[in-house]
Amino acid sequence: MRIKDINKQEAIIEATVLLVNEIGFASSSVSKIAKKAGVSPATIYIYYKNKEDLLVSTYIEIKKKMSSALLENFDNSKPFRDILQNVWKNGFKFVSENQSLYQYSEQFASSPYSDLVNQSKLEKHFEPVITVLQKGIEQKVIKNVPFDLLATFIFYPIMVMSNPKKCRSLELNEEIIETGFSLAWDAIKL
Amino acid sequence: MRIKDINKQEAIIEATVLLVNEIGFASSSVSKIAKKAGVSPATIYIYYKNKEDLLVSTYIEIKKKMSSALLENFDNSKPFRDILQNVWKNGFKFVSENQSLYQYSEQFASSPYSDLVNQSKLEKHFEPVITVLQKGIEQKVIKNVPFDLLATFIFYPIMVMSNPKKCRSLELNEEIIETGFSLAWDAIKL
Repeated sequence: MRIKDINKQEAIIEATVLLVNEIGFASSSVSKIAKKAGVSPATIYIYYKNKEDLLVSTYIEIKKKMSSALLENFDNSKPFRDILQNVWKNGFKFVSENQSLYQYSEQFASSPYSDLVNQSKLEKHFEPVITVLQKGIEQKVIKNVPFDLLATFIFYPIMVMSNPKKCRSLELNEEIIETGFSLAWDAIKL
Repeated sequence: MRIKDINKQEAIIEATVLLVNEIGFASSSVSKIAKKAGVSPATIYIYYKNKEDLLVSTYIEIKKKMSSALLENFDNSKPFRDILQNVWKNGFKFVSENQSLYQYSEQFASSPYSDLVNQSKLEKHFEPVITVLQKGIEQKVIKNVPFDLLATFIFYPIMVMSNPKKCRSLELNEEIIETGFSLAWDAIKL
């Protein structure tokens, strides 16, 4: 029964992402999501308390997937620049391969639902990257500025560059991703 | 009659911003906006073709206001760094003084409605800043990379840093705004 349950839950999450991307948070309902997932609304209520819980849980699932994608080939023994460049590349790979998840998470993050997320619990998944930045600061390789400021220049540009509404004439090839990283690194390096 | 008309149009724009921020694009309607603005729906249709036209025009109005705010005290005779630092500071000032306009424009920019905007016409308002970047590239002070990439590091960080959902523990005082600029400048300078 276990496997069947996981499949059902995955189908529900997938349906939530697709429906919200199509018609937005306000118009999405548990019954519409159930229909799209091919399950009964009652099944959804086994796993989730209500629509809010479903929307928030979906976001957290996406963030977990994103963090494992970012940490692929993570090698603590390499220089800080190389570690962060690998995270940067992984970020672009994740966004390009998971457009609908990315679209959902961007919408979610700027919606009032984001207030319902336990952010510090979520940050745990990104801990290895945070630790790298902290070590970089200690070893005077990275500027000693608040973490949010470092993230603004080393992580958010991935979202901006990947957003065709923000970077309309930017072709995201390997060269531009590398160039982008050199700007990001110049911003945060001491 | 002219002044009265402008006041009415301003009331309509203000009501559009407030209602959309409250209930979102999907749930907003011309009749609800009319009610909030204290005008009849027929009055709105004098100025705007339909809901879409109203939403798009509101966004363009905000962008015009934003561009004149960014260009305040613009002085072409100063060094590139100083010109851009002034734009950067103006950006934070605009966002902090116009939270509801900023919130509307952020939501709008990531909505499907943004496809209806004539972006190159809109960019005309930001031309002096674009020219500064171009001159900086020519004079080998700024990196010779696509304009979208420069904007990712010198303009979008203003939005990210001003967004409490993205930078949750960042207190936007003068010092942090200055520090932020030094990271942005390090990113784009040659």
